[in-house]
Amino acid sequence: METGRKAVALLSGGLDSTTALAIASQQGFAVYALSFDYGQRAVIEIEAARHVAARSRVADHVVVRIDLGVFGGSALTGDLPMPRGRRADEIGHGIPPSYVPARNTIFLSFALAWAEVLGTGDIFIGAHILDFGGYPDCRPAYFRAYERMANLATKAGVEGSASFEIHTPLIDLSKAQIIRRGLELGVDYSLTVSCYTPSPGGEACGECDSCILRVKGFRENGLEDPVRYRKPRMTV
Amino acid sequence: METGRKAVALLSGGLDSTTALAIASQQGFAVYALSFDYGQRAVIEIEAARHVAARSRVADHVVVRIDLGVFGGSALTGDLPMPRGRRADEIGHGIPPSYVPARNTIFLSFALAWAEVLGTGDIFIGAHILDFGGYPDCRPAYFRAYERMANLATKAGVEGSASFEIHTPLIDLSKAQIIRRGLELGVDYSLTVSCYTPSPGGEACGECDSCILRVKGFRENGLEDPVRYRKPRMTV
Repeated sequence: METGRKAVALLSGGLDSTTALAIASQQGFAVYALSFDYGQRAVIEIEAARHVAARSRVADHVVVRIDLGVFGGSALTGDLPMPRGRRADEIGHGIPPSYVPARNTIFLSFALAWAEVLGTGDIFIGAHILDFGGYPDCRPAYFRAYERMANLATKAGVEGSASFEIHTPLIDLSKAQIIRRGLELGVDYSLTVSCYTPSPGGEACGECDSCILRVKGFRENGLEDPVRYRKPRMTV
Repeated sequence: METGRKAVALLSGGLDSTTALAIASQQGFAVYALSFDYGQRAVIEIEAARHVAARSRVADHVVVRIDLGVFGGSALTGDLPMPRGRRADEIGHGIPPSYVPARNTIFLSFALAWAEVLGTGDIFIGAHILDFGGYPDCRPAYFRAYERMANLATKAGVEGSASFEIHTPLIDLSKAQIIRRGLELGVDYSLTVSCYTPSPGGEACGECDSCILRVKGFRENGLEDPVRYRKPRMTV
């Protein structure tokens, strides 16, 4: 289904964004992968993103360095303690300390700039329903408001040469469903990093919210997560 | 009129943003000035922003380094030729090559992040009517759509602890009126830099669209612009 259309895909190097990127490719888009080095603890994510982009044969991959930590306010940039060892059913209620203020808005704004330069309006992001209760900037109403703003913000939107659409192909999938979809598309999840606090050698902690949801997603598919964990026998 | 409220003010170090910041102060806001070092040719703007912030006794001033040039597509980041020697009445029609894709959207998104961390919803930007015909992201409809998106994007917006407002106090003022308003508020325009291509020593070129509109604004007030120009006798 090659259409020649271009799409910008946000790629963190995690399980979700890697699957969303695979779906964009499968839909026939030439994918321009966009990653951010934002002073996060998980700098190892950037390496994962590079491996995923190379394996996915994207048209281009750009890593933009931005300093989100300058404003503080998040466990993910080092200002707040990261929750550990929560049960899966405790995650996704309320806004967790891993919330980074305006993160998706900042990421999408860079994607918007690149999309406009590329002459396309299609942007993919791996947001999904598990984040609903947690992150405000993962809800459909937010994405629709973002599209409306984007069409007013840009030369392309004003002149009508592009209409911006934020594609959220995972939005109503569970983690287990996302993994199943990705495996159908040939995604190699051993390349991805979901852990908020991986070791310098790349092992996942197995205790942060992101690890717990990921392991549970693989188990629900009757599979073992192919990435390495510091604690091999977790109960989730 | 001290209210103790905080506001984030985008500060480029130019004439417009400096005036908008002065208006925020005059309205009683404790001002948190936000500047960007975005690989623009006019790195000298950052120094101007620092001088303005110091003189304005802001509560804080943060300079965020971001690379907008990575995507290309603008004369302001070095990819397209910059127009020179246009008449003032030629400027403001159509979208000029100094347009940087999604620039205000990116800038406002960082302002949104900082505002959320500070616990405020007030953001000031020096956009105004001269840019109407030119930059899509300077129009009131864009700012209203941005506010709506911001209230859906953030923990503060969702929880109701802050309602985001993009203040555009210059929106319907001419350059001459902006200057008059700033002088009433005691703004020292000799600290500001508007030129798109200043010399390394800080002299303005006098030929780019920004210089031409600025010189005209001072002349309409019967004043000489206090900044130094490489060409002291321009006809505009």
